[in-house]
Amino acid sequence: MSKVRKQTWRFDHPIYLAATGTAVGPLEARGPLSGNFDKAYNSLNCGEKDWIEAERALMRRAISYCLAKAGKQEGDMDLFLAGDLTDQTVTSNFIAKENRVPFIGMFGACSTSMETLAAGAQLVDSGYADNVLCAVSSHNATAERQFRNPTEYGGPLNLTQTFTVTGAGAAIVTKERGKVRVCEATIGRVIDWGIGDPNNLGSAMAPAAADTIWTHFQDTGRVPDDYDLIVTGDLSSVGTPILKELLIEKGLDISNVHQDCGLMIYSSDQPVGAGGSGCACSAVVTYGYLYKRLAEGSLKRVLVVATGALLNKATPKQKDTIPCIAHGVVLETAKEGDQ
Amino acid sequence: MSKVRKQTWRFDHPIYLAATGTAVGPLEARGPLSGNFDKAYNSLNCGEKDWIEAERALMRRAISYCLAKAGKQEGDMDLFLAGDLTDQTVTSNFIAKENRVPFIGMFGACSTSMETLAAGAQLVDSGYADNVLCAVSSHNATAERQFRNPTEYGGPLNLTQTFTVTGAGAAIVTKERGKVRVCEATIGRVIDWGIGDPNNLGSAMAPAAADTIWTHFQDTGRVPDDYDLIVTGDLSSVGTPILKELLIEKGLDISNVHQDCGLMIYSSDQPVGAGGSGCACSAVVTYGYLYKRLAEGSLKRVLVVATGALLNKATPKQKDTIPCIAHGVVLETAKEGDQ
Repeated sequence: MSKVRKQTWRFDHPIYLAATGTAVGPLEARGPLSGNFDKAYNSLNCGEKDWIEAERALMRRAISYCLAKAGKQEGDMDLFLAGDLTDQTVTSNFIAKENRVPFIGMFGACSTSMETLAAGAQLVDSGYADNVLCAVSSHNATAERQFRNPTEYGGPLNLTQTFTVTGAGAAIVTKERGKVRVCEATIGRVIDWGIGDPNNLGSAMAPAAADTIWTHFQDTGRVPDDYDLIVTGDLSSVGTPILKELLIEKGLDISNVHQDCGLMIYSSDQPVGAGGSGCACSAVVTYGYLYKRLAEGSLKRVLVVATGALLNKATPKQKDTIPCIAHGVVLETAKEGDQ
Repeated sequence: MSKVRKQTWRFDHPIYLAATGTAVGPLEARGPLSGNFDKAYNSLNCGEKDWIEAERALMRRAISYCLAKAGKQEGDMDLFLAGDLTDQTVTSNFIAKENRVPFIGMFGACSTSMETLAAGAQLVDSGYADNVLCAVSSHNATAERQFRNPTEYGGPLNLTQTFTVTGAGAAIVTKERGKVRVCEATIGRVIDWGIGDPNNLGSAMAPAAADTIWTHFQDTGRVPDDYDLIVTGDLSSVGTPILKELLIEKGLDISNVHQDCGLMIYSSDQPVGAGGSGCACSAVVTYGYLYKRLAEGSLKRVLVVATGALLNKATPKQKDTIPCIAHGVVLETAKEGDQ
């Protein structure tokens, strides 16, 4: 591998996604990306007795689709890298118990999607693993009650509030030739510009996204037009303009190629406040929609910058502001000459 | 690197601990390992206004000692790998915000100590980083109220219950020659033998420790006598005999060389139930006591198997049993010929 600079890794070996798998809840299945997911549940319970079990079903299902499409089994996996938003990442822990794959638990809030993918690609590139299974999940009901209010309250969404995506995404990283290549990763730093409102995570996360994107371009020497798309994870309609402005202030204009997964996954008439959020937001958009576009070649190079707000239920009550992070991964359509 | 088998990594380059740092609370400072820690606070508040801040002070202080002893600064670190027991690992997140080092958040409950060290050594061995800062923390008051009962209750300890260590440990992993070498790591699988009682984590974790230790010996072809010490993280007086019995059933007798950090850190007359637990338990014993013994050569090769119970506050109430994991790292006294 070549370490371009401290924060960006360039994978020297061609590292591929062998396959991806996605599962979503009812609202996501009715959004604009409908048809890009492997499994859509028609209720938040996902056929289970409670939401905790429902989130496990989502991750389990995303993984089973991913394995089936890759023609692989759990026993073929050297490592399982996973995380989620539940306290102590119990969704991932319980899935790891089922699949018995050596497990490295990770936590980066909603950035965990690209955190696990970056780490998985690094492990394969360096020869420490042949096949790494990466997965994340989030569930609207398990997350909203944990971070915000009891969901039974039925309170109206604050205008800046995002809506946790119900879903899970999985990917297998390998050196075996696939249709989509994992080329680089930029590991983010924790940034906190003083936003303390857990109902305004878009504003809180925008500076972290800007820092990682800025660093990525510094490290790689590229310009925004080198990408067909730069997608952020869940900045929403509130954080997106802030991100663009922060980068324009530094002389970097990504407006022509930027989209936000939180705005892609729902349509504007869905009751989701400022947009989607949660680990699954960037995961299902990347492993569902973007993977298909990259595999068919209608997108050739995409930078996915998953954003995460690193708070918990107690920290806002302690008057702490919200530390945020963003991890970026570059995905490209695999080319003939890749070796 | 040579991948001995799926679960065990052997680091081909000599990978060293540049230094370690430890900070502990009052009870740990009065235990048998007193004198092996860099900083001992005389109250659970550690000079801060609340326990959440106190845990951050412990991690902050362990890191500052570690950096100072290594003669390095935060800006010299390529990556910060950290985790803890607080919901959404907020102790680590807030320290990452302070040090601004690119951050990979990890979660493996009390196994996070060796999870971060294993991952850090892997990143350095593969050339992805020159200096990785690893840290974990736990605080008796933040953890006990989160996982068990409001601490104000003052209820008696269950006989099988462990006591969360107040402390933090940090280590810098590097290729620069140091006194202690990180040689191998065995990444654990999640094991659950059906224990559902959060007040009996020693029993729950023993099978995971046995699985990782058994796998380690299978992978490396070694025997227990090849180690001066095999230490488990926090099996306590309850889990320790179970571990030994499980391994003897498989023909592996570690009795002569086994100790448990949870039993090493407190004396039998301290009010700690079945022994110590928490991320900091294995971290401060390893980075404090064991590091010194390895550096001076009175111990030459140690296998540290940090054990983690991957539950949260809700899962026992849902009648879930407790998934557990253990990650092992081999530390050796650096030798003249290492290159």
